[in-house]
Amino acid sequence: MPSALILIADGTEEMEFTITYDTLVRAGVACTSAYVSADSDTASTTQTTPSFAKGSRGINILPDTYFSPQAHVPDNFDLLVIPGGAKGAETISKNSPVQHLVREYIKNGKYVGMICAGSLAALTAGLEKQPLTSHPSVKSHLEKDFIYSEQPVVVSGRLVTSRGPGTTFPFALTLVELLCGSAKRAEVAGPMVFPPGTCE
Amino acid sequence: MPSALILIADGTEEMEFTITYDTLVRAGVACTSAYVSADSDTASTTQTTPSFAKGSRGINILPDTYFSPQAHVPDNFDLLVIPGGAKGAETISKNSPVQHLVREYIKNGKYVGMICAGSLAALTAGLEKQPLTSHPSVKSHLEKDFIYSEQPVVVSGRLVTSRGPGTTFPFALTLVELLCGSAKRAEVAGPMVFPPGTCE
Repeated sequence: MPSALILIADGTEEMEFTITYDTLVRAGVACTSAYVSADSDTASTTQTTPSFAKGSRGINILPDTYFSPQAHVPDNFDLLVIPGGAKGAETISKNSPVQHLVREYIKNGKYVGMICAGSLAALTAGLEKQPLTSHPSVKSHLEKDFIYSEQPVVVSGRLVTSRGPGTTFPFALTLVELLCGSAKRAEVAGPMVFPPGTCE
Repeated sequence: MPSALILIADGTEEMEFTITYDTLVRAGVACTSAYVSADSDTASTTQTTPSFAKGSRGINILPDTYFSPQAHVPDNFDLLVIPGGAKGAETISKNSPVQHLVREYIKNGKYVGMICAGSLAALTAGLEKQPLTSHPSVKSHLEKDFIYSEQPVVVSGRLVTSRGPGTTFPFALTLVELLCGSAKRAEVAGPMVFPPGTCE
Protein backbone atom coordinates (compact mmCIF):
# COMPACT_ATOMS: atom_id res chain seq x y z
CA MET A 1 0.00 0.00 0.00
CA PRO A 2 1.45 3.39 -0.96
CA SER A 3 1.79 5.93 1.82
CA ALA A 4 1.66 9.72 2.06
CA LEU A 5 2.80 12.28 4.60
CA ILE A 6 0.64 15.42 4.47
CA LEU A 7 1.91 18.42 6.42
CA ILE A 8 -0.43 20.80 8.23
CA ALA A 9 0.13 23.97 10.29
CA ASP A 10 -1.92 26.78 11.78
CA GLY A 11 -3.22 28.68 8.75
CA THR A 12 -3.24 25.73 6.36
CA GLU A 13 -5.99 25.99 3.72
CA GLU A 14 -8.36 23.33 5.04
CA MET A 15 -9.95 22.50 1.67
CA GLU A 16 -6.57 21.81 0.08
CA PHE A 17 -5.54 19.64 3.05
CA THR A 18 -8.84 17.76 3.30
CA ILE A 19 -9.42 17.11 -0.42
CA THR A 20 -5.88 15.75 -0.84
CA TYR A 21 -5.96 13.52 2.26
CA ASP A 22 -9.50 12.20 1.65
CA THR A 23 -8.95 11.49 -2.07
CA LEU A 24 -5.71 9.63 -1.34
CA VAL A 25 -7.47 7.56 1.36
CA ARG A 26 -10.18 6.67 -1.18
CA ALA A 27 -7.39 5.30 -3.40
CA GLY A 28 -6.08 3.10 -0.60
CA VAL A 29 -3.09 5.31 0.21
CA ALA A 30 -2.12 5.23 3.90
CA CYS A 31 -2.15 8.91 4.91
CA THR A 32 -0.47 10.52 7.92
CA SER A 33 -1.04 14.19 8.69
CA ALA A 34 1.82 15.82 10.58
CA TYR A 35 1.62 19.15 12.39
CA VAL A 36 4.44 21.63 11.78
CA SER A 37 4.74 24.10 14.65
CA ALA A 38 5.44 27.75 13.97
CA ASP A 39 7.33 28.02 17.26
CA SER A 40 10.48 26.08 16.55
CA ASP A 41 11.98 23.18 14.65
CA THR A 42 12.23 21.14 17.85
CA ALA A 43 8.61 21.08 19.05
CA SER A 44 8.30 17.60 17.64
CA THR A 45 10.60 16.20 20.30
CA THR A 46 8.44 17.25 23.24
CA GLN A 47 4.88 16.33 22.21
CA THR A 48 3.37 13.57 20.13
CA THR A 49 -0.32 14.48 19.91
CA PRO A 50 -1.08 18.01 18.72
CA SER A 51 -4.40 19.38 19.96
CA PHE A 52 -5.42 20.78 16.57
CA ALA A 53 -4.35 22.88 13.61
CA LYS A 54 -6.32 26.12 13.13
CA GLY A 55 -7.38 26.19 9.48
CA SER A 56 -7.21 29.37 7.42
CA ARG A 57 -11.01 29.74 7.43
CA GLY A 58 -11.67 28.61 10.99
CA ILE A 59 -12.02 24.84 10.69
CA ASN A 60 -9.91 23.13 13.34
CA ILE A 61 -8.43 19.78 12.34
CA LEU A 62 -6.71 17.20 14.55
CA PRO A 63 -3.43 16.13 12.94
CA ASP A 64 -2.42 12.48 13.24
CA THR A 65 0.96 13.37 14.74
CA TYR A 66 3.65 16.02 15.07
CA PHE A 67 6.06 16.44 12.19
CA SER A 68 9.24 14.53 12.99
CA PRO A 69 12.34 14.97 10.83
CA GLN A 70 13.55 11.59 12.16
CA ALA A 71 10.37 9.58 11.50
CA HIS A 72 9.10 11.22 8.35
CA VAL A 73 12.00 10.32 6.09
CA PRO A 74 11.57 9.16 2.47
CA ASP A 75 12.20 5.53 3.49
CA ASN A 76 8.80 5.61 5.23
CA PHE A 77 6.57 7.37 2.67
CA ASP A 78 6.02 7.47 -1.09
CA LEU A 79 4.72 11.04 -1.14
CA LEU A 80 5.17 14.28 0.81
CA VAL A 81 2.43 16.93 0.42
CA ILE A 82 2.60 20.62 1.33
CA PRO A 83 -0.79 22.37 1.20
CA GLY A 84 -1.35 26.10 0.88
CA GLY A 85 -2.96 28.80 2.97
CA ALA A 86 -0.65 31.80 3.29
CA LYS A 87 0.22 31.49 6.98
CA GLY A 88 0.42 27.70 7.01
CA ALA A 89 2.56 27.58 3.87
CA GLU A 90 4.90 30.18 5.37
CA THR A 91 5.37 28.11 8.53
CA ILE A 92 5.96 24.90 6.59
CA SER A 93 8.18 26.34 3.86
CA LYS A 94 10.43 28.19 6.33
CA ASN A 95 10.99 25.07 8.46
CA SER A 96 14.53 23.90 7.72
CA PRO A 97 13.94 20.19 8.50
CA VAL A 98 11.03 20.32 6.04
CA GLN A 99 13.29 21.96 3.45
CA HIS A 100 15.82 19.17 3.98
CA LEU A 101 13.16 16.48 3.59
CA VAL A 102 11.81 18.02 0.38
CA ARG A 103 15.29 17.64 -1.12
CA GLU A 104 15.65 14.09 0.29
CA TYR A 105 12.27 12.93 -1.06
CA ILE A 106 13.13 14.17 -4.55
CA LYS A 107 16.67 12.73 -4.34
CA ASN A 108 15.26 9.33 -3.30
CA GLY A 109 12.76 9.21 -6.15
CA LYS A 110 9.72 9.85 -3.94
CA TYR A 111 6.97 12.28 -4.97
CA VAL A 112 6.54 15.76 -3.50
CA GLY A 113 3.24 17.59 -4.00
CA MET A 114 2.88 21.33 -3.37
CA ILE A 115 -0.27 23.35 -3.91
CA CYS A 116 -1.18 27.05 -3.75
CA ALA A 117 1.28 28.98 -1.53
CA GLY A 118 2.75 25.58 -0.59
CA SER A 119 4.82 25.85 -3.80
CA LEU A 120 7.01 28.37 -1.94
CA ALA A 121 8.68 25.31 -0.40
CA ALA A 122 10.24 24.54 -3.80
CA LEU A 123 12.05 27.86 -3.49
CA THR A 124 13.02 27.61 0.18
CA ALA A 125 14.24 24.03 -0.34
CA GLY A 126 16.41 25.25 -3.20
CA LEU A 127 15.04 22.87 -5.83
CA GLU A 128 16.54 23.23 -9.28
CA LYS A 129 14.88 25.36 -11.98
CA GLN A 130 12.00 23.36 -13.47
CA PRO A 131 8.33 23.72 -14.49
CA LEU A 132 6.07 24.67 -11.55
CA THR A 133 2.82 26.42 -10.72
CA SER A 134 1.36 28.02 -7.58
CA HIS A 135 -1.39 30.30 -6.37
CA PRO A 136 -1.25 33.52 -8.45
CA SER A 137 -0.60 35.51 -5.25
CA VAL A 138 2.91 34.03 -4.90
CA LYS A 139 3.79 33.86 -8.63
CA SER A 140 6.12 36.87 -8.32
CA HIS A 141 8.23 35.01 -5.73
CA LEU A 142 8.68 31.98 -7.97
CA GLU A 143 8.79 33.07 -11.61
CA LYS A 144 12.49 33.98 -11.63
CA ASP A 145 13.72 30.68 -10.17
CA PHE A 146 11.31 28.31 -11.93
CA ILE A 147 9.71 27.81 -15.34
CA TYR A 148 6.38 29.22 -14.24
CA SER A 149 3.21 27.63 -15.65
CA GLU A 150 -0.47 28.48 -15.26
CA GLN A 151 -1.69 24.93 -15.87
CA PRO A 152 -3.96 23.55 -13.07
CA VAL A 153 -1.45 20.78 -12.29
CA VAL A 154 2.22 20.60 -13.31
CA VAL A 155 4.17 17.32 -13.11
CA SER A 156 7.95 17.85 -13.31
CA GLY A 157 9.73 14.58 -12.60
CA ARG A 158 8.86 13.85 -8.96
CA LEU A 159 7.61 17.39 -8.20
CA VAL A 160 3.85 17.91 -8.61
CA THR A 161 2.50 21.45 -8.16
CA SER A 162 -0.94 23.03 -8.38
CA ARG A 163 -2.75 26.37 -7.94
CA GLY A 164 -5.45 26.62 -5.27
CA PRO A 165 -8.63 25.15 -3.75
CA GLY A 166 -10.24 25.01 -7.19
CA THR A 167 -7.47 22.79 -8.58
CA THR A 168 -7.14 20.48 -5.58
CA PHE A 169 -9.31 17.70 -7.01
CA PRO A 170 -7.21 17.38 -10.20
CA PHE A 171 -4.05 17.72 -8.03
CA ALA A 172 -5.14 14.89 -5.70
CA LEU A 173 -6.30 12.69 -8.58
CA THR A 174 -2.97 13.23 -10.36
CA LEU A 175 -1.18 12.07 -7.19
CA VAL A 176 -3.48 9.00 -7.11
CA GLU A 177 -2.62 8.24 -10.74
CA LEU A 178 1.13 8.58 -10.10
CA LEU A 179 1.03 6.34 -7.00
CA CYS A 180 -1.68 3.85 -7.98
CA GLY A 181 -2.20 4.04 -11.74
CA SER A 182 -4.83 5.47 -14.08
CA ALA A 183 -7.38 2.69 -13.43
CA LYS A 184 -7.38 3.56 -9.72
CA ARG A 185 -7.78 7.25 -10.57
CA ALA A 186 -10.93 6.46 -12.57
CA GLU A 187 -12.22 4.12 -9.85
CA VAL A 188 -11.82 6.84 -7.21
CA ALA A 189 -13.20 9.70 -9.34
CA GLY A 190 -16.42 7.88 -10.33
CA PRO A 191 -18.23 7.89 -6.95
CA MET A 192 -17.10 11.48 -6.29
CA VAL A 193 -19.63 12.53 -8.98
CA PHE A 194 -17.79 15.36 -10.73
CA PRO A 195 -19.91 17.53 -13.02
CA PRO A 196 -19.63 16.36 -16.66
CA GLY A 197 -16.46 17.63 -18.33
CA THR A 198 -14.45 18.20 -15.15
CA CYS A 199 -11.71 16.11 -13.51
CA GLU A 200 -11.59 13.57 -16.33
CA MET B 1 -23.83 39.36 7.72
CA PRO B 2 -25.62 36.16 6.65
CA SER B 3 -25.14 33.12 8.87
CA ALA B 4 -25.07 29.37 8.33
CA LEU B 5 -25.42 26.34 10.57
CA ILE B 6 -23.52 23.34 9.19
CA LEU B 7 -24.21 19.99 10.83
CA ILE B 8 -21.50 17.38 11.33
CA ALA B 9 -21.46 13.88 12.82
CA ASP B 10 -19.14 10.89 13.03
CA GLY B 11 -18.92 9.63 9.45
CA THR B 12 -19.57 12.99 7.78
CA GLU B 13 -17.79 13.33 4.41
CA GLU B 14 -15.06 15.75 5.39
CA MET B 15 -14.57 17.25 1.91
CA GLU B 16 -18.26 18.13 1.64
CA PHE B 17 -18.24 19.66 5.12
CA THR B 18 -14.97 21.56 4.67
CA ILE B 19 -15.56 22.92 1.15
CA THR B 20 -19.00 24.23 2.12
CA TYR B 21 -17.88 25.83 5.40
CA ASP B 22 -14.69 27.36 3.99
CA THR B 23 -16.35 28.73 0.83
CA LEU B 24 -19.14 30.33 2.87
CA VAL B 25 -16.56 31.91 5.23
CA ARG B 26 -14.75 33.33 2.18
CA ALA B 27 -18.05 35.02 1.25
CA GLY B 28 -18.34 36.60 4.69
CA VAL B 29 -21.01 34.19 5.96
CA ALA B 30 -20.76 33.54 9.71
CA CYS B 31 -20.51 29.75 9.96
CA THR B 32 -21.23 27.54 12.97
CA SER B 33 -20.55 23.80 12.82
CA ALA B 34 -22.72 21.76 15.17
CA TYR B 35 -22.08 18.15 16.16
CA VAL B 36 -25.03 15.75 16.01
CA SER B 37 -24.47 12.78 18.31
CA ALA B 38 -25.46 9.29 17.21
CA ASP B 39 -26.24 8.33 20.80
CA SER B 40 -29.42 10.26 21.47
CA ASP B 41 -31.33 13.43 20.75
CA THR B 42 -30.48 14.79 24.18
CA ALA B 43 -26.67 14.75 24.16
CA SER B 44 -26.73 18.46 23.43
CA THR B 45 -28.04 19.22 26.89
CA THR B 46 -25.09 17.71 28.74
CA GLN B 47 -22.00 18.92 26.87
CA THR B 48 -21.15 22.07 24.98
CA THR B 49 -17.74 21.37 23.43
CA PRO B 50 -17.50 18.17 21.40
CA SER B 51 -14.02 16.70 21.25
CA PHE B 52 -14.13 15.98 17.53
CA ALA B 53 -16.14 14.45 14.70
CA LYS B 54 -14.53 11.43 13.03
CA GLY B 55 -14.68 12.08 9.29
CA SER B 56 -15.57 9.33 6.83
CA ARG B 57 -11.97 9.10 5.57
CA GLY B 58 -10.19 9.54 8.89
CA ILE B 59 -9.84 13.32 9.21
CA ASN B 60 -10.95 14.43 12.66
CA ILE B 61 -12.58 17.86 12.83
CA LEU B 62 -13.44 19.93 15.91
CA PRO B 63 -17.02 21.17 15.65
CA ASP B 64 -17.76 24.67 16.94
CA THR B 65 -20.52 23.41 19.23
CA TYR B 66 -23.06 20.66 19.87
CA PHE B 67 -26.26 20.72 17.88
CA SER B 68 -28.96 22.35 19.98
CA PRO B 69 -32.61 22.24 18.86
CA GLN B 70 -33.23 25.27 21.09
CA ALA B 71 -30.35 27.46 19.86
CA HIS B 72 -30.18 26.48 16.22
CA VAL B 73 -33.63 27.70 15.20
CA PRO B 74 -34.31 29.54 11.92
CA ASP B 75 -34.48 32.88 13.75
CA ASN B 76 -30.71 32.59 14.30
CA PHE B 77 -29.46 31.40 10.89
CA ASP B 78 -30.11 32.02 7.20
CA LEU B 79 -29.01 28.59 6.05
CA LEU B 80 -28.93 25.02 7.41
CA VAL B 81 -26.53 22.58 5.69
CA ILE B 82 -26.53 18.77 5.91
CA PRO B 83 -23.41 17.19 4.37
CA GLY B 84 -23.08 13.60 3.19
CA GLY B 85 -20.98 10.63 4.14
CA ALA B 86 -23.16 7.54 4.58
CA LYS B 87 -22.82 7.12 8.35
CA GLY B 88 -22.90 10.83 9.16
CA ALA B 89 -25.91 11.46 6.93
CA GLU B 90 -27.73 8.55 8.56
CA THR B 91 -27.12 9.97 12.04
CA ILE B 92 -28.20 13.47 11.03
CA SER B 93 -31.21 12.51 8.90
CA LYS B 94 -32.61 10.17 11.58
CA ASN B 95 -32.40 12.81 14.31
CA SER B 96 -35.94 13.98 14.96
CA PRO B 97 -35.03 17.50 16.21
CA VAL B 98 -33.02 17.93 12.97
CA GLN B 99 -36.02 16.73 10.95
CA HIS B 100 -38.19 19.29 12.77
CA LEU B 101 -35.71 22.08 12.08
CA VAL B 102 -35.47 21.22 8.38
CA ARG B 103 -39.23 21.79 8.15
CA GLU B 104 -39.02 24.98 10.24
CA TYR B 105 -36.21 26.49 8.14
CA ILE B 106 -38.16 25.89 4.93
CA LYS B 107 -41.40 27.17 6.50
CA ASN B 108 -39.63 30.35 7.67
CA GLY B 109 -38.15 31.07 4.26
CA LYS B 110 -34.60 30.12 5.24
CA TYR B 111 -32.40 28.02 2.96
CA VAL B 112 -31.63 24.35 3.55
CA GLY B 113 -28.71 22.75 1.71
CA MET B 114 -28.29 18.97 1.47
CA ILE B 115 -25.53 17.18 -0.40
CA CYS B 116 -24.73 13.54 -1.24
CA ALA B 117 -26.42 11.16 1.23
CA GLY B 118 -27.43 14.27 3.20
CA SER B 119 -30.40 14.55 0.83
CA LEU B 120 -31.97 11.66 2.76
CA ALA B 121 -32.97 14.31 5.30
CA ALA B 122 -35.49 15.67 2.77
CA LEU B 123 -37.23 12.29 2.98
CA THR B 124 -36.99 11.81 6.75
CA ALA B 125 -38.19 15.39 7.34
CA GLY B 126 -41.19 14.67 5.12
CA LEU B 127 -40.63 17.54 2.69
CA GLU B 128 -43.15 17.79 -0.12
CA LYS B 129 -42.48 16.26 -3.55
CA GLN B 130 -40.17 18.60 -5.46
CA PRO B 131 -37.02 18.55 -7.63
CA LEU B 132 -33.98 17.13 -5.78
CA THR B 133 -30.68 15.35 -6.36
CA SER B 134 -28.36 13.25 -4.19
CA HIS B 135 -25.46 10.85 -4.36
CA PRO B 136 -26.32 8.10 -6.87
CA SER B 137 -26.00 5.51 -4.06
CA VAL B 138 -29.17 6.78 -2.36
CA LYS B 139 -31.17 7.63 -5.51
CA SER B 140 -33.38 4.55 -5.08
CA HIS B 141 -34.51 5.81 -1.64
CA LEU B 142 -35.54 9.20 -3.02
CA GLU B 143 -36.82 8.83 -6.58
CA LYS B 144 -40.37 7.82 -5.61
CA ASP B 145 -40.98 10.74 -3.24
CA PHE B 146 -39.16 13.49 -5.19
CA ILE B 147 -38.71 14.66 -8.76
CA TYR B 148 -35.25 13.16 -9.06
CA SER B 149 -32.64 15.10 -11.06
CA GLU B 150 -29.05 14.30 -12.02
CA GLN B 151 -27.99 17.95 -12.28
CA PRO B 152 -24.91 18.83 -10.13
CA VAL B 153 -26.96 21.33 -8.08
CA VAL B 154 -30.76 21.59 -7.85
CA VAL B 155 -32.43 24.70 -6.42
CA SER B 156 -36.10 24.11 -5.55
CA GLY B 157 -37.47 27.12 -3.69
CA ARG B 158 -35.47 27.17 -0.45
CA LEU B 159 -34.16 23.61 -0.81
CA VAL B 160 -30.74 23.29 -2.46
CA THR B 161 -29.43 19.77 -3.13
CA SER B 162 -26.27 18.37 -4.71
CA ARG B 163 -24.54 15.06 -5.50
CA GLY B 164 -21.14 14.39 -3.92
CA PRO B 165 -17.61 15.64 -3.21
CA GLY B 166 -17.15 16.47 -6.90
CA THR B 167 -20.14 18.84 -6.91
CA THR B 168 -19.46 20.52 -3.57
CA PHE B 169 -17.75 23.60 -5.04
CA PRO B 170 -20.73 24.45 -7.30
CA PHE B 171 -23.06 23.60 -4.37
CA ALA B 172 -21.21 25.97 -2.01
CA LEU B 173 -20.95 28.72 -4.63
CA THR B 174 -24.68 28.42 -5.34
CA LEU B 175 -25.34 28.91 -1.61
CA VAL B 176 -23.04 31.97 -1.68
CA GLU B 177 -24.98 33.37 -4.63
CA LEU B 178 -28.35 32.81 -2.93
CA LEU B 179 -27.21 34.42 0.34
CA CYS B 180 -24.86 37.13 -0.94
CA GLY B 181 -25.55 37.68 -4.66
CA SER B 182 -23.84 36.81 -7.92
CA ALA B 183 -21.13 39.50 -7.59
CA LYS B 184 -19.98 37.92 -4.30
CA ARG B 185 -19.99 34.48 -5.92
CA ALA B 186 -17.62 35.73 -8.62
CA GLU B 187 -15.46 37.55 -6.05
CA VAL B 188 -15.10 34.37 -3.99
CA ALA B 189 -14.54 32.02 -6.93
CA GLY B 190 -11.73 34.08 -8.51
CA PRO B 191 -8.98 33.51 -5.95
CA MET B 192 -9.93 29.82 -5.66
CA VAL B 193 -8.41 29.36 -9.15
CA PHE B 194 -10.77 26.87 -10.75
CA PRO B 195 -9.55 25.25 -13.97
CA PRO B 196 -10.91 27.08 -17.02
CA GLY B 197 -14.48 26.04 -17.84
CA THR B 198 -15.41 24.81 -14.35
CA CYS B 199 -17.46 26.48 -11.58
CA GLU B 200 -18.37 29.47 -13.71
